[in-house]
This record gives sequence, structure tokens and C-alpha cells, in this order.
Amino acid sequence: MADTPLASLDEMRRVLADLPGPHLEAGSACLARDARLTKPPGSLGRLEQLTHWMSLWQGKHPPTSRRPRVAVFAGNHGVTVHGVSAFPQTVTRQMVENFVAGGAAVNQLCTVMDADLRVYELGLDQPTADFTQDAALSDEECARAIAYGMMAVEPGVDVLAVGEMGIGNSTSAAALCYGLFGGEAREWVGPGTGVSGERMQTKLRVVEDGVSRHREWCRDGMDWLRAVGGLELAAIVGAIVAARMARVPVLLDGFACTAAAATLWAVDRHALDHCEIAHVSAEPGHRRLLDRMGRKPILDLGMRLGEASGAALALGIVKAALSCHGGMATFQEAKVDTAL
Amino acid sequence: MADTPLASLDEMRRVLADLPGPHLEAGSACLARDARLTKPPGSLGRLEQLTHWMSLWQGKHPPTSRRPRVAVFAGNHGVTVHGVSAFPQTVTRQMVENFVAGGAAVNQLCTVMDADLRVYELGLDQPTADFTQDAALSDEECARAIAYGMMAVEPGVDVLAVGEMGIGNSTSAAALCYGLFGGEAREWVGPGTGVSGERMQTKLRVVEDGVSRHREWCRDGMDWLRAVGGLELAAIVGAIVAARMARVPVLLDGFACTAAAATLWAVDRHALDHCEIAHVSAEPGHRRLLDRMGRKPILDLGMRLGEASGAALALGIVKAALSCHGGMATFQEAKVDTAL
Repeated sequence: MADTPLASLDEMRRVLADLPGPHLEAGSACLARDARLTKPPGSLGRLEQLTHWMSLWQGKHPPTSRRPRVAVFAGNHGVTVHGVSAFPQTVTRQMVENFVAGGAAVNQLCTVMDADLRVYELGLDQPTADFTQDAALSDEECARAIAYGMMAVEPGVDVLAVGEMGIGNSTSAAALCYGLFGGEAREWVGPGTGVSGERMQTKLRVVEDGVSRHREWCRDGMDWLRAVGGLELAAIVGAIVAARMARVPVLLDGFACTAAAATLWAVDRHALDHCEIAHVSAEPGHRRLLDRMGRKPILDLGMRLGEASGAALALGIVKAALSCHGGMATFQEAKVDTAL
Repeated sequence: MADTPLASLDEMRRVLADLPGPHLEAGSACLARDARLTKPPGSLGRLEQLTHWMSLWQGKHPPTSRRPRVAVFAGNHGVTVHGVSAFPQTVTRQMVENFVAGGAAVNQLCTVMDADLRVYELGLDQPTADFTQDAALSDEECARAIAYGMMAVEPGVDVLAVGEMGIGNSTSAAALCYGLFGGEAREWVGPGTGVSGERMQTKLRVVEDGVSRHREWCRDGMDWLRAVGGLELAAIVGAIVAARMARVPVLLDGFACTAAAATLWAVDRHALDHCEIAHVSAEPGHRRLLDRMGRKPILDLGMRLGEASGAALALGIVKAALSCHGGMATFQEAKVDTAL
């Protein structure tokens, strides 16, 4: 992993205490143009809201999606020793190879969306510790994974879609949610790639054990991230924060991705204001998580694949939104009568 | 309008009695390939369902979206004399000119989706009759408008997105729904382009008057179409039926478009099986209508613009779905381990 100045989670906490806000002037310029376009006010609904959000967080008007990037972070999870997934851990690396070869769903979606796909491996041969026994990551490992994730935000990228690949990470995501939001473990544990019966009971027990082992010492979202999270989930946190600094709006993918992001939200309710939830996954914990965070997804298509597939798909909606905003005629230009 | 053999609504009724069904073999071939792709079964959710639907109704595997067409039908409504819209009737023609000049939302969406946009004008200088006084259309006028709409399905088009432009047509759509489904008029009447207060009360009264004037003689969906519908709404009906014949799946836009389609559904519960609802509009009657028809929209983005904007946007989702299905590697090709 990259050698970076972010050596500890306390440094991350200092970064989070001073995040840049929205660019209100760019947002106002957006709303002013929107009001003049040849359509009834508000009639493009979420498309208008997304355009405004892009303006606010890119800090410019008109906003652009000329260089969308899809970043998929891959990591392995020690907790898979319990048999919590329908697939063996070997599949994480095999799917990374599938991404590189162009054979996965996200490859096709990036082609359709004309987006740049980057896959970031986080030591697939060094899974996290089994979080029922120990913290998944040390403070330093977690900080280094966050720093690694920050690399996804390179100059020129103007919108970032974020996702993950990691056998076992819906268990990690459920533990993050249970740790951060409480309730009962079974509210957060779902089938993931497709577990049921005894394997589901194991998954539930693993989440309960993991969270009760770490609850005492976890003070904040960053602690939960290292206690029951994962390398790819920490990298997502890094990408989100780096995007905020670089004025790059972010589309968050499904359950595991949003659970990682929720560790930031737990630290600061405004830390994800530059992020939109691309879609709500069929994994039941995701809808619950979005409800808790007061978020409405862009898409609701019953997807539950991960690998940034929902986020890549939502790039198309953002692109369409900006295209309407930028390309439509005004009432004056088109000589269309305004409302009576 | 085109001279065609469809001279009466009774001829249309005979066509509807003998609609072709789905191509089950193509559908099976689609499901068989889907099961081998590198993803947990079912994990692409609605994308998988849409690909299967495209196979069934194109009657081929793999299905294609190489020549998507967006068809916008424009017509004027005599009922606008009552002041039921926030915009004057002149806006229908002005917006058609805006479509031709490339300045409307649907133009930008078609560019993003790489779709062919066609605008069909239906005698904008000859609005329908005021349906509170008389049937909006004669039997022959309605049949001719249906026949005109059929022209949108030209050889080579492999998926059709359908929508409308017509000041006053959310009043017509509300009347169609109230006529077809009953309940109370206020359940179907909404703000449309943005009416409220006294104008909304007028709109409600116009819908009540229109439906009560025609209820006695209307025996089926086709009668309601001519009684309280419109030229562009009849053309949509024609496009839907022609697409069925030509094995072209259809994406239906918002409230007015779905209300027109519902006249077919009222005749035959399977007449819209080759159609998907592209999005649910913010116009409240649309969600109610979809509930009554047991349909789940692809998108839910709070849009209420019409002009096929939601249908054009959903073309992107269909395109993405087919791209995943066609381009993904199988487990065997990618040497990825299958489930435990």
C-alpha cells in the first residue's frame, strides 16, 4: 500500500473535524438557470436535485460529468473462517481478475456509462483478523487502508462512483450497522450473496459476537471501522473523504459501501453531504440503513451484486440530469409561453 | 394523417382480440445464459427481469437495443377552454418546435441514450371537442389517430419509448382513469403542469362532468379513449399495438401515456405485457394507476414533465441490462468458483 502521511485514525479524526462545505454560489447559479428552462418548475424532479447537488459539491456551474470514475475496492475478511458467505474467499481474487479481464457486470456498466473503471486491491492474501477474536484491523492498518483509498481521487475526475468486492463483507457491513446504530443484530444481517438456514444463523451469531466483543472500547465510527470493518471498507472511507477535499461528488453503491460510509456519518452528520446513495440494495439492511441516515436512493432495482454496479448505473442518471440542465433551451430562447 | 385500413374502433377491437404472445423459447435461452454469468443468481434484480422481458417480446436471444426510438405524440385538447392547465394551448405547438430545434429535455435525454427521437403532430390546429359537451373524438377520428400512431413502429426499431405533449392532457388522463377505474374524480385529478386553487377545482369539475356525460354509452376502453381521450393519446394506443405486432418492447412514460395505455389494458389484461412502465410520475394519479394495474415502475425520480422524458431515461437502464447480459463472462469462462 501507498506510503502516506495518514499514519493513525486520530489524524483522520482531525481531517473530519474540518471538512469543506458546499459552494452556495455555484448552487444558486444552478437554480437560477433551472428556473428559465423550458419545463414546468420542478418537473424534472430528482434530475434537478442531482444537478444542484453536483453544482454545490463541484463548486462550479454548470457542473460536469466528463470524467466519471468507478472505483472498486477489494479486500478479504478473516471472518469468512466461520462460513458466513455462500462463496469461498478465493472468489474475491477471481472476481478481481474478472474485472481486469472485462468480464464482470461493472465492466459492462462502465462501458455503457463511458466511465473509467479502476480496481484497487487491498492485500487479498492478508485478510483482516477474525473480528469475533480481535479487532479486524489495527489502528495503523486501518489508517493505511484509508490513505490507500484516497488515491482513487485523481486530478480531473469530476464524479466518483464507489463500490466494493470482498467475500464476507456483508457480515462486516451488518456488524458496522449493528455497532453504529444498535437495534438487534438480525435487523442488519441478510442473505448477502445468498446464505440461508444454518449459514445464516452462523452469520447472525458472528455479528452478535463481534459487536459485543468490541462495544466497550469503540468510541466512534472510526473505531467501529477498524473493529469490525475491512480493508476495502476503510479504503472506501478514504475515497469519500478525499473526494470531499477535491470537490468531487460521490455516488455510493449498496449495503457494504453505505455501511462503510456510515462510519463517517456517525462522526459528523454532514460528512456525506457530497454523496448520493446510488441505489437501494435488495439486502434488507440497506433500506434500514438509508432510513436511519434519512437518505433516499436514486435507483431501486432490487440489485444486490456490489462491485459498484448500482453506483455505475446511477452515473447514467447523473449524466442525463446534467445534460438536460446544460442543453435545454430557456423559455426565452425557444419562444415558449410561460405559465398563465 | 396517414390513410390506413383502420377505419373504425371495431376494427381495432378485432385486432386486440388476437394479439401475439411472448416468445417463450427466447425467454428460456435468456434465463439459461443468465444462470451462468459471474454473479450470484438474481443479484442484478430488475436488470435481469428487463433482459428476460426484452427476450420474450423481441422473440430473440440475446435481445438488442441497437435502434431505440423515442416517439413523442402531440395533440391539443378542446377541454382547455375551461382553463384546466397552467399553460396556454399555444404551448403545445411551441414545444413541438422546441423538440424540432433540439431544446427540450427529451432532446438531451435522447442524445445521452443514443436514441432516435421522432415527434408526431396530430393536427395541433384541430383540438379535440370539449368532452364536457361531446365525445372528444368521433369513432373515425379516434381510429385514424390510432392508425397514425402505428407509424412510429418502423422496421429496425428494436425498442420503443413512448410519450406525449399536449396542454390539457392530464385532465384527459384523469378522465380516462376515472372512467375506466371509478373511485372518485379527485383521486385522479392532480396538479399537472402546476395548477392549484380555483383552477384545480375547475379541473376536477371538468373531469366529473365529462365522465358523467359519457358513462352511459361507454362500453370499453376504446369508447373511453374517444369519449374523453385525445388525438395524441389515441396515437399512443396505436404505437403500443403496432409494437406488439412487430415484436418491439415498449417503455411507457408517465401519467397521460399510461392512462392511454390503460384503455388497452381495460380491453385485455395481457395487452400491455410487452410494455414496461418507465417511471412513476410525481402526478399523484400515476402511482394510483400503476397500483390498479399491478405494475412496478423502473424509475421513481419525482419527474412530471411528460414528453417521453421518463421513458427516454429508462432506455438507459434497459441498455445497461442488455449490456450486462451480453458482455459478462460466465463462471466457466472467468474461472470463478461457484457457490459453496
